[in-house]
Amino acid sequence: MKIAVLPGDGIGPEVTREAVRVIEALDLGIELSEAPVGGAAYKAKGHPLPPETLALAQASDAILFGAVGDPDCDALERHLRPEQAILGLRKALTLFANLRPARVFAGLEGASALRPEIAAAIDLVIVRELNGDVYFGEKGFRTNAAGEREGYDVMSYSTSEVERIAHIAFRTAMARRRRVCSVDKANVLETSQLWRDVVIEVAKGYPEVALEHMYVDNAAMQLVRNPGHFDVVLTGNLFGDILSDQASMCVGSIGMLASASLGERQTAYGTFGLYEPIHGSAPDIAGKGLANPMATILSAAMLLRHSLGQAAAADRIEAAVARTLADGILGRDLGGTAGTTEIGDAVLARL
Amino acid sequence: MKIAVLPGDGIGPEVTREAVRVIEALDLGIELSEAPVGGAAYKAKGHPLPPETLALAQASDAILFGAVGDPDCDALERHLRPEQAILGLRKALTLFANLRPARVFAGLEGASALRPEIAAAIDLVIVRELNGDVYFGEKGFRTNAAGEREGYDVMSYSTSEVERIAHIAFRTAMARRRRVCSVDKANVLETSQLWRDVVIEVAKGYPEVALEHMYVDNAAMQLVRNPGHFDVVLTGNLFGDILSDQASMCVGSIGMLASASLGERQTAYGTFGLYEPIHGSAPDIAGKGLANPMATILSAAMLLRHSLGQAAAADRIEAAVARTLADGILGRDLGGTAGTTEIGDAVLARL
Ligand SMILES: CC(C)[C@H](C(=O)O)[C@@H](O)C(=O)O
Ligand SMILES: CC(C)[C@H](C(=O)O)[C@@H](O)C(=O)O
Repeated sequence: MKIAVLPGDGIGPEVTREAVRVIEALDLGIELSEAPVGGAAYKAKGHPLPPETLALAQASDAILFGAVGDPDCDALERHLRPEQAILGLRKALTLFANLRPARVFAGLEGASALRPEIAAAIDLVIVRELNGDVYFGEKGFRTNAAGEREGYDVMSYSTSEVERIAHIAFRTAMARRRRVCSVDKANVLETSQLWRDVVIEVAKGYPEVALEHMYVDNAAMQLVRNPGHFDVVLTGNLFGDILSDQASMCVGSIGMLASASLGERQTAYGTFGLYEPIHGSAPDIAGKGLANPMATILSAAMLLRHSLGQAAAADRIEAAVARTLADGILGRDLGGTAGTTEIGDAVLARL
Repeated sequence: MKIAVLPGDGIGPEVTREAVRVIEALDLGIELSEAPVGGAAYKAKGHPLPPETLALAQASDAILFGAVGDPDCDALERHLRPEQAILGLRKALTLFANLRPARVFAGLEGASALRPEIAAAIDLVIVRELNGDVYFGEKGFRTNAAGEREGYDVMSYSTSEVERIAHIAFRTAMARRRRVCSVDKANVLETSQLWRDVVIEVAKGYPEVALEHMYVDNAAMQLVRNPGHFDVVLTGNLFGDILSDQASMCVGSIGMLASASLGERQTAYGTFGLYEPIHGSAPDIAGKGLANPMATILSAAMLLRHSLGQAAAADRIEAAVARTLADGILGRDLGGTAGTTEIGDAVLARL
């Protein structure tokens, strides 16, 4: 079992370090290899996703990813910016299915900006398409008919792109409360109209799953008003980006939320995938030992479950995280005082 | 002074009726003329925005708009659907600047899904561009290189489109707390890169205004975590659609939020504009007298202020609304029991 570890920028290395310690402590015979990515890779090798890093990722069964993003790189041409590393990995490795579970851990109801009784009801997964939409369409600058400079990006989805992500959502729902809410903007966008038509077709294969459609503006509202309404939220790349960050904050802190980006390739142990906290590189607190590594540790648990077939080990990590929180060992994002290593130590002690 | 009243579908007629009663009670010598729009117009005249309705709107100083959207019309071709009426009015009348103020009325802190101390701090305006973006680009269905059906929509912004909305945002900020947060997705979209570059240029003309940039995913998060952070939020058509509905729910109920869509044309009394509640047609409660008309009544106040130069009358309406709320006369959306007419009566009694 091989894991490629790509720590990246900002707090990425700190939080990844704790997740690696947890994986190593489990002693599962996993081989871990590290490579640079993002701004760190640009500075070391001139490219945010160097060929060696991509090759290592391709040769592994799963990727543990920290975060990318570095203010030093903001003025670079787009293809050299840190964000291109994660977008490039998602595309090159066909990681089309992003799963972002959001639920409130016992004891953290008070950390949410939502009223505790509303926050406590959150238990949803956002299934976000990750290989299409306005992210990967033709884009650039051009002169319009009036002779003016214009920026443009083409949004699109094809039938098969929607089909494969819809299947993931319906299968996910079958293992949960059997409800899928498909989010689009079909009253304005043809991309969404195709999305909706295809989702309705795919749903016919899952008669036990209740399907509803919701416009994205309404979904953003309902995620605040009544997040307990949602089980599986199925949506495209752009709307998924917005709604999943919003959902994370409804839960309390983005420092707690893990994610899996699954591909089509099957390995000897499960489905090939990339695992990352949904928070970013947080340059303002980088290198200070202040970041909460929980989201990355929980991403490691998802990795063990989905890509390496190690469900029992994943359960152990999740239980240790829950006990750490129950014992009141909280990062600053949750109103506590525990630092990065201290939280890692606490999880290790409870494994 | 001429107002075109377009009640539209669902609860549109009920809530508009109350706002019209309030305007008439002020006895300002305003001429009000009504015309059908949306699904109602399609049913009566075969088109959601009949030429006579558009002509009436064009000949007026301001438009009071209810809501459009009718499930009976969902299967129609896109250009005949109710939503095309509002999109068509925005485009035909160059209503490019959508102002959506969000603040918590005294006594309603408890209605928000957010913790009361977080909700109480909300006092922001979303300045949303309304004539461009992926809403109005080329769109359709096509066969892609793999021979598959694909839906597509082109997102774009030109320099002058961003300039004119940015000026509105900075001027709005000058009359408030002098902070603009421009929301985009410049780490992925070239449309956003152009947006950001132009906003930075326009900002140079407003040295007293503090400008920050935020990615839309982060903005959706901060609107939940710390909405008190925002003063003026400047953003494009699509992101503005999502964030303003989200903000409305942070305030407590979408039934309380008004909006103005301003054009370039100046009338004898102010700026030509369309005013509408940000809620939709709510077909499920239509015709039952249950809808909260406050958002439409507050839209009428915005109309008097921005388009008809009647600031004192607008103040009177807003004060009457505040007193009605303080007296505990609340719609069902706010946990109360008052019906549509009852709320209208209560506001009239307090004018
Ligand atoms: C870094 C950025 C390109 C990325 C995205 O927009 O997908 C991030 O926000 C995420 O959600 O993983
Ligand atoms: C009805 C719909 C087309 C419209 C929009 O997306 O602009 C609505 O959601 C709004 O925000 O006014």
